Amino acid sequence: MKSEHIPKATIKRLAMYVQVLETLKREGSQVVSSELLARACSVNPSQIRKDLAYFGEFGVRGVGYHVQDLIYSIKHSLGVDRVWKCALVGVGNLGKALLRHQDFKFRGFDIVGAFDCDPFKIGEEVSGLEVVCTRRLKDAVKELGIEIGLITTPVNRAQRAANFLIEAGVKGIINYSPAMLTVPSDVYVEYVDFFHHFYSVAFSITLDRKQDRPGVDSTDEDDA
Amino acid sequence: MKSEHIPKATIKRLAMYVQVLETLKREGSQVVSSELLARACSVNPSQIRKDLAYFGEFGVRGVGYHVQDLIYSIKHSLGVDRVWKCALVGVGNLGKALLRHQDFKFRGFDIVGAFDCDPFKIGEEVSGLEVVCTRRLKDAVKELGIEIGLITTPVNRAQRAANFLIEAGVKGIINYSPAMLTVPSDVYVEYVDFFHHFYSVAFSITLDRKQDRPGVDSTDEDDA
Repeated sequence: MKSEHIPKATIKRLAMYVQVLETLKREGSQVVSSELLARACSVNPSQIRKDLAYFGEFGVRGVGYHVQDLIYSIKHSLGVDRVWKCALVGVGNLGKALLRHQDFKFRGFDIVGAFDCDPFKIGEEVSGLEVVCTRRLKDAVKELGIEIGLITTPVNRAQRAANFLIEAGVKGIINYSPAMLTVPSDVYVEYVDFFHHFYSVAFSITLDRKQDRPGVDSTDEDDA
Repeated sequence: MKSEHIPKATIKRLAMYVQVLETLKREGSQVVSSELLARACSVNPSQIRKDLAYFGEFGVRGVGYHVQDLIYSIKHSLGVDRVWKCALVGVGNLGKALLRHQDFKFRGFDIVGAFDCDPFKIGEEVSGLEVVCTRRLKDAVKELGIEIGLITTPVNRAQRAANFLIEAGVKGIINYSPAMLTVPSDVYVEYVDFFHHFYSVAFSITLDRKQDRPGVDSTDEDDA
């Protein structure tokens, strides 16, 4: 597998494919066409076929992709079919929502540490985890083998949280705050933002009304 | 502007551009290069230039894009520079996190109704909103002019919530549950999933280690 040449945008799409495939699997689907997978991921079928070509040929002509095989192949090829220990920094509403989310561990992402700098939160227990002072992050990362950091702090605390994670040696950060982070080139940051979903919906409703037709065009080539 | 031909994937990217541009604006940036905007959005610069071509020429050679002008042009061209009334269905941890999120109203998305079918939640007040029985959704949508529905229910309740929203005439749904929804062709659903962010980070960390180089390639053509 020519992983050494997989572009970042492809990795993002592969991640989305796996997530959608796992949803299909949960719903009992054994086979999926590239057209259906494309619709669910809002990319075009040719793009999906191109992306999956990194892992050799999976598709069965006239049948589609075997959901389970495809999930396994992508995750195994990329070496992510294992448990990833995660630390969450910032135990506010969103932090608690993520800590209480049941699916993470099931999907191989185990949040083993919850950190906050608020003395009123330190010591509090959230879904079985005791909230610990962020200053103790570095030790926890070493002791628990944490590889991924989730930042759910207010925007003005996000860079500080990132600095703690980077100093602790964490190479992967998922940032739920709207802050743009400054990180070394060997640290990968995934920005989570709720707003593009809102804009997507608002755009679609508006265009539907302008165009007076059901649904916006999802068949056009992505890069038409 | 040829909005009638904007593909769905482009709309998704435009939504992301606006969100990133607004973050840049908040941080004081007045101008942004298509390269920086491309990096922040994990697409390639040529894609951004192609997408923005729908709205005529914005870029200033050697300077880049004027952040404020570009935000205005995209939102105004698409007709979303106004307030959108939203209803949230499912007042669990995530629902509360969203209801307490300060930025939504500021960005033009005003959550004016919170609904749940749990009698123990009905009547509870969350950030100034009284949780109302989901059966009253239809009336609320009419009375309050709600156009967008947020589904933050457990997975097995999501389709039911969607049915209530659709019956109430809502044409845009943001689904935070992992359930795939069955909706009429004139209803647009935006699926929010936290996992592709986790997979993206896990993929990137793994590939970095395999490839023993800092950062995954973000310069390759998206569709290389």
